[in-house]
Amino acid sequence: MLPTIDDVRAAARRIAPHTHRTPVLSSSRLSEELGIEAFFKCENLQKVGAFKARGATNAVLSLDEESAARGVVTHSSGNHGAALAYAAAARGVPCVVVMPRDAPEIKVAAVRGYGAEIVLCERAEREAACRREIEERGMTLIHPYEDPRVIAGQGTAALELLEQVDELDRVIAPVGGGGLLSGTALTVSSLAPGIEVWGAEPAAVDDAHRSLESGTLQPGPVNPRSWGDGLLTGLGKNPFAILKPRGVRVVTVEENAMLDAAWTLIRRLKVVVEPSGATVLAALRARADQWKGRRVGAIISGGNTDFAWLSEL
Amino acid sequence: MLPTIDDVRAAARRIAPHTHRTPVLSSSRLSEELGIEAFFKCENLQKVGAFKARGATNAVLSLDEESAARGVVTHSSGNHGAALAYAAAARGVPCVVVMPRDAPEIKVAAVRGYGAEIVLCERAEREAACRREIEERGMTLIHPYEDPRVIAGQGTAALELLEQVDELDRVIAPVGGGGLLSGTALTVSSLAPGIEVWGAEPAAVDDAHRSLESGTLQPGPVNPRSWGDGLLTGLGKNPFAILKPRGVRVVTVEENAMLDAAWTLIRRLKVVVEPSGATVLAALRARADQWKGRRVGAIISGGNTDFAWLSEL
Repeated sequence: MLPTIDDVRAAARRIAPHTHRTPVLSSSRLSEELGIEAFFKCENLQKVGAFKARGATNAVLSLDEESAARGVVTHSSGNHGAALAYAAAARGVPCVVVMPRDAPEIKVAAVRGYGAEIVLCERAEREAACRREIEERGMTLIHPYEDPRVIAGQGTAALELLEQVDELDRVIAPVGGGGLLSGTALTVSSLAPGIEVWGAEPAAVDDAHRSLESGTLQPGPVNPRSWGDGLLTGLGKNPFAILKPRGVRVVTVEENAMLDAAWTLIRRLKVVVEPSGATVLAALRARADQWKGRRVGAIISGGNTDFAWLSEL
Repeated sequence: MLPTIDDVRAAARRIAPHTHRTPVLSSSRLSEELGIEAFFKCENLQKVGAFKARGATNAVLSLDEESAARGVVTHSSGNHGAALAYAAAARGVPCVVVMPRDAPEIKVAAVRGYGAEIVLCERAEREAACRREIEERGMTLIHPYEDPRVIAGQGTAALELLEQVDELDRVIAPVGGGGLLSGTALTVSSLAPGIEVWGAEPAAVDDAHRSLESGTLQPGPVNPRSWGDGLLTGLGKNPFAILKPRGVRVVTVEENAMLDAAWTLIRRLKVVVEPSGATVLAALRARADQWKGRRVGAIISGGNTDFAWLSEL
């Protein structure tokens, strides 16, 4: 079952006590440089440093008492794991995050910091590891982008953006698995169908672009390499089913354009942006000629970075 | 003439179209670590990247038509110069910023970017260079922290903070020349006299601490060295005259504590903080035992940094 705009509205009410209404920032110099009025919805300032807190919190708070008491499980090497751990702690229920053995220590520490149990395993075994928790402990799987409750939760960022900025012409969000972009498309197409929705993804992981161009879900690349480490996942089938009928298009951006954009956002907006989150500015730059004069809302998805990419600039 | 709370209120109305109502951010992990409920007023997200936009804008918009048309002048190697250039451009009047020949190129470029004329001179000659513009062109000097219109403008940050966060026990702000801290003290003592106001400054430039402890304005050190480059100026006499009767106290912080704090804020709040702005967190850490459980509003003064200090961590 795909989520509806009513699910997004219900999610907004549900998660409000546990998530931030993130600010929208703009820079006149940056807007001038682009020739576009750009409004950045700062999900990097969200709880756990990413929009993922919205979807995970909505999913955990949607569970009935009995399921909640048995806990939740997911596999993630990134922000969703930390977000689920945060959401489970907020409701006071158990949480297991299955992580690959080679996950960066900083990400393992983040999940542990929110009090979740961590199961380390080989990448190929992570689904099996999740299944074990589901079968043995009755835990509920909260998938990072296929779960309709997660998608509805991610859609609340756009709900706020539409309240915060009038008269937008376009909204653009990063796309990996597609939870954020499909939630955004769901919200915007229901409440303001005149606004075009666009995605942005690294050229190294361009399956969302290819899927929406061809009209058929395309597999993601195997072992892709990109500094956009939040966007390495292939587009999910539920997100695709939401994006396709709404005519959402995706701009692909090169690595150096993404890193330049991250550095620009840090300097101009004074907020920390992870490279994945900066794909939206790189995409605005790529489209600047066609979008001249338009009012564009761009969702900065996250700000969890160790700045290792600074040395590439 | 020292400014009053009515001047602060008038400033808030005057500057509203040209400045941001900056967000207040908090991090549960950081609050937990401190044992204090900490609310950070993010003036690093202000126009020109610092609270200085408030005071400069208020001063420029307060001028009568005739004075405004002749323009404004100041000497500054830092954020006030950029802020005055910004404010003058907003009103469409001329602006001269006198800068030392050895000012960092990045700061000269920022002032030039807002369209001001730049006069480069030796540090010792900067007052004379300002006088020349005043005498020959009839420009109005906008002093960075002695000007009552500037102090009233800086006080608007605390005005917003009191609206944004209920039931604060303490407010703390960085202190260099003292425009921000005295504006803060003026606002808080008038509207919420039960809230204690504190300052934070680098130990290398501890004249505000010494002045308020001794009750007599003390000279600042000659050629102080600190990464808190926004706070190298000695405390001004008007700021001192506001701070002293209000019993404001100042916490001094070591260089490494200030840089650690800047890095913590960047990681936890996901915003860019210049070392000067992080003195407030370093001070909270120093006072954590005494302030346990209190609700503290801390003003992050700016976010203009080239990150050169990262190599010191």
